[in-house]
Amino acid sequence: MVKLTATLSIQEKHRVLQSPYLLFIGDATDPLSIKMARSAADWRPEKCVGEYRLPGCEVSTGCPSLSIDEAVELGAKSFVLGFANSGGHLDARYLEHVLKALDAGLDIVSGLHDKLSSYPQLVEKAEAMQAQLIDIRHPSTTFTTGTGKRRQGKRLLTVGTDCSVGKMYTSLSIARHLQQQGKAATFRATGQSGILVAGEGIPIDCVVADFISGAAESLSPDNDPEHWDIIEGQGSLSHPAFAGVSLGLLHGSQPDALIVCHALSRTHMRALPHQPQPTLARTIELNLAAARLTNPEVYVAGIAVNTSSVSDEQARDWCEQTQTKLGLPCVDPVRHGVSELVAAL
Amino acid sequence: MVKLTATLSIQEKHRVLQSPYLLFIGDATDPLSIKMARSAADWRPEKCVGEYRLPGCEVSTGCPSLSIDEAVELGAKSFVLGFANSGGHLDARYLEHVLKALDAGLDIVSGLHDKLSSYPQLVEKAEAMQAQLIDIRHPSTTFTTGTGKRRQGKRLLTVGTDCSVGKMYTSLSIARHLQQQGKAATFRATGQSGILVAGEGIPIDCVVADFISGAAESLSPDNDPEHWDIIEGQGSLSHPAFAGVSLGLLHGSQPDALIVCHALSRTHMRALPHQPQPTLARTIELNLAAARLTNPEVYVAGIAVNTSSVSDEQARDWCEQTQTKLGLPCVDPVRHGVSELVAAL
Repeated sequence: MVKLTATLSIQEKHRVLQSPYLLFIGDATDPLSIKMARSAADWRPEKCVGEYRLPGCEVSTGCPSLSIDEAVELGAKSFVLGFANSGGHLDARYLEHVLKALDAGLDIVSGLHDKLSSYPQLVEKAEAMQAQLIDIRHPSTTFTTGTGKRRQGKRLLTVGTDCSVGKMYTSLSIARHLQQQGKAATFRATGQSGILVAGEGIPIDCVVADFISGAAESLSPDNDPEHWDIIEGQGSLSHPAFAGVSLGLLHGSQPDALIVCHALSRTHMRALPHQPQPTLARTIELNLAAARLTNPEVYVAGIAVNTSSVSDEQARDWCEQTQTKLGLPCVDPVRHGVSELVAAL
Repeated sequence: MVKLTATLSIQEKHRVLQSPYLLFIGDATDPLSIKMARSAADWRPEKCVGEYRLPGCEVSTGCPSLSIDEAVELGAKSFVLGFANSGGHLDARYLEHVLKALDAGLDIVSGLHDKLSSYPQLVEKAEAMQAQLIDIRHPSTTFTTGTGKRRQGKRLLTVGTDCSVGKMYTSLSIARHLQQQGKAATFRATGQSGILVAGEGIPIDCVVADFISGAAESLSPDNDPEHWDIIEGQGSLSHPAFAGVSLGLLHGSQPDALIVCHALSRTHMRALPHQPQPTLARTIELNLAAARLTNPEVYVAGIAVNTSSVSDEQARDWCEQTQTKLGLPCVDPVRHGVSELVAAL
C-alpha cells in the first residue's frame, strides 16, 4: 500500500500560485465579471490581503481596498488579474498597474485569454524583477495520454446537466465539509476560478485534446486509501460544445462517487437557445455509463441544485420531490448545505 | 436553400498543402514508420512525384526515388517529412536535407511532434525563400466553440471499437466509391495521414480541448443537400485516453450515418493491456446515444472490419455472422470493397 500525504501536492507538474493575493478588479461594473476574484475572496479569505480597484469600479470582492505598496507591506506575493472582459484581452490602460505591481516585487497571475508573455514590456520587467508571469488559462506543462489505470484513494467528481450550474461551489463545499469532519480531502481545480482558490490545478478545457484524460489523471494522483479527491467538474456530457472535455475529465478522474449538479429554471443549454436541457435521470444514466469505463464501481451520491430562481419553500419542495423520484439525496448547497451529500459517500 | 459547390474548400480556415509532394522517408527501416508517406502515395499517387530516401533506407512508398532537383524539375511543390520516429523529433542529420529542399524553393510539410518553426535555421531559410513551414499536427487557426446547430448536406463519420482499426481507409474508400458513382462527396481529414492525402483538414486531437466540436463543425460546413462529407473518425468512445476527442468529433460532425470500424484478433485496447475491447453492439449503442444529441436521425449504415489476421474464408464467415447478428452490412473494405456499405446510405 502506498503511503502518501493527504495533501499531496501536484506542484511537480503544475505551478503553485504564491499567496497572499492582491486582487486587481480594474474598473469593473458587473459583479459577474469579477467572479474569479470573488471566488478567491469567498473561499480563501486568508489568501487575499485586499483588492486593488480603479476609479469607476462599482463592484467589490469584500476585501479591503489597498494600494500596491500597502498590499506588499501586508505580505502580498501575487497581483491577480481577477476580472474577465469580452475578448479576454488585457486593456492597454491596465498595463501601467501591472508594471507597477511587478516593480513592487509581485508575481502576476492572469485568467485572461491573452497571454501575459505576449506583452514584451511585461516580460522585460518580470525578468528584471525575477518575478513570474502566470497565465492560469494556459497549461505550462506537457501531459501524457491517459491510461485508465486505477489509482489508490477515493475520488468524487461533480458533473452537470449544463455548464455553470454550481460544480465548483459544490466541490469546494464538499471538500470543506469533509475537512471539517477531520477527513483527508483535497479540492482539485480544473478551471481558472478554482485554480485561484486552490492555488494550483489544471485548466482542463485549455489542454490539447489528446491529453484531456491524461491531464485529469495527473490531477488526482495515487493517494492514501481513505483520502478523498474532490474534483471540480466542467461542462456537461449533453453540451454540444463541451462534452468532449467533460468525458475526458470523467474518464481521467475515474470517480468513485458522482454528484450531479443542476440549475432550476433553465430553458435551454447555456448560450444555445436551440439546445434543450437533459433531464436529471438522463444525466445520471449518461454519466454512469461513461464513468464505468475506468471505474466499474462508480455510483451517484446525490444531486446538488441551484435553486436561486425560486423561493425557499419551492426549493425545499423541489428537492423533496426529486429525492423521492430518484432515490438520491437532493439539496441546494447554498441554502441547505452539503451534509446530506457527504453522508451519502 | 444554400447552393454550394460540392467540393467546398475549407481553405479559408485551414492551410491547403501545395502538391505535388516529394516524400522524404529518411533512412526508415520499418514500414509502419512511413505510414503518412505511404497513405499519400497509395491514395493520391497523382500528388506524389517521388520519394527522397537516404542511404540505409529499407522501405519504399512505391514512388520513384528522386533527388530534390529531379523532383523540382517534375513540378514538386512540397517536401513532405513523411515518417514518424519515437519522440517525434526532427533528427539533426535530416536538417541539411530540409534546408536543401527549402533552397530548391519547396514548402516543407511535417507530421512530426516537433514544430518546424522551433528550428531557427529553418525559419531563417524559409523566410529568405518565401517558403512555408507547415506543421500538420499543429492547427494554424483558432476555432470557436461548437454550437450544435444543424448544417445542410449529408455527413458520414467512421467510428470504432478502438484506435487504428481502419477508419481512415474506410472513409477514403467510401468517398472514392461515391465519387465513382458520380455523387458529390468529400473526404474530410482529421489526422496527419488523412490531411496529407486530402491536402487539407484539421488534426482534431491537437486542437485545444474547448474547441474540439467547434473545430469539427468547421471541418464540414454547410453544403449542398445531396453532398456527402465523409469524415475520418478518431479514437473510440471506449478508449480511456481518447474518448473525449471521439465524442467532440462525433458531436461536431453531426453525422447522418455512422460506419463502425473494428479489427479482429485484438485482445485489448491499443497500448492498454489492462483495458478490454468493447463489443460491436456496445460500440453501436454508445455512438448512437451520443450522436443523437446533435442529430436525432443518426443511423448506423454498416460495419467495416479489418480481417487481415484471418483467412479469406474465416473473414467471410465472420462478416456473414456479424451481418446476421446485428442486421447490418458487414465487410472488410480491403478484401470485399465498400459497395455494400455505400448501398446502405
